[in-house]
Amino acid sequence: MSPALEKVEQLLKQLPGLGYRSAERIALHLLVEKPERLGPLIASLQAASTALRRCPVTGNLTEGETCAIYADPARHQEVTCVVETVPDLMAIERSGVFRGVYHVLHGKLSPLHGVGPDQLNFASLKKRIAEGEVQEVILALSNDIEGEATCHYIQDELLAGREDIALSRIGFGLPSGGGITYADSATLRSALDGRRQF
Amino acid sequence: MSPALEKVEQLLKQLPGLGYRSAERIALHLLVEKPERLGPLIASLQAASTALRRCPVTGNLTEGETCAIYADPARHQEVTCVVETVPDLMAIERSGVFRGVYHVLHGKLSPLHGVGPDQLNFASLKKRIAEGEVQEVILALSNDIEGEATCHYIQDELLAGREDIALSRIGFGLPSGGGITYADSATLRSALDGRRQF
Repeated sequence: MSPALEKVEQLLKQLPGLGYRSAERIALHLLVEKPERLGPLIASLQAASTALRRCPVTGNLTEGETCAIYADPARHQEVTCVVETVPDLMAIERSGVFRGVYHVLHGKLSPLHGVGPDQLNFASLKKRIAEGEVQEVILALSNDIEGEATCHYIQDELLAGREDIALSRIGFGLPSGGGITYADSATLRSALDGRRQF
Repeated sequence: MSPALEKVEQLLKQLPGLGYRSAERIALHLLVEKPERLGPLIASLQAASTALRRCPVTGNLTEGETCAIYADPARHQEVTCVVETVPDLMAIERSGVFRGVYHVLHGKLSPLHGVGPDQLNFASLKKRIAEGEVQEVILALSNDIEGEATCHYIQDELLAGREDIALSRIGFGLPSGGGITYADSATLRSALDGRRQF
């Protein structure tokens, strides 16, 4: 109908969670229904794109020198939770149960997709461990083969011979509110493997 | 966490169909995971915003003088389907069953929300009717009180004394594939009101 509009819809459709219909709806919203919202949105994206950078220590997003969580003296700097992505970090922050600091890998090992150790943010984790700031590592990585491989890599390559550092992986099993009947087999397998003695 | 990021998320959340979580996911996608997608998206939005304008005859979006559907000689110019919005027009186009042309009102009469006849695209519809190009009007407006009021306005104010112009409103009732059990009362009322003799 309009090449310019089609281009917008095609690019919007690539964003996570947006399909054909929602991309069309957002494009028309910004271009026809509420064009006054387009300018501020573009300005905010450009401002954020300029302001945000990757924290050289933790890999988290930051507007300052280092990530605000890492710089917070109230957090336990010696406990590091390793996550795959910034959204993962945010989900854990929202739960409000973790008082340590984070390390964001920006992915997980996946030889099939060409993601090796060099593509992930391991160098600064290695540095943090070498500098002695880490006493405990909690691996909050996905419950899949690639998450598993990434855990093994950290255990074998980054923490080899460091029995002084406690290492654990988050628990897997039935999600909160989940019933047995509707759980998939892989979840039930995780749940049985991860059973705890009373 | 980051004021610049929060601003982006807040503006994204205002878009139709996006909630708190999906806005965060899209913001992080564009700013962290795939920053190379941000530039082309902004450029396409700005290009479309410059290229697109409202067709002075039909109210539809166009990159040219008049809307491509209206300018298409294969369409029946004498049959005009009145819709509220451009997405409504696109939905009807996708169905592929309508071969006439459109008129987009850009809203519906809603005194409670301060939308009177002057806020809607009635002037050019009046002109189209006066110039004799319209022989049939199909009202494809919402099945609600405001849609109803808009239909009555068109009938009473724009088509008064024009018995030569056929006027109809699209049918209401059970959607395709819909069962009686799960239909809401208002839909069943529409369906019973709109029953057709065999």
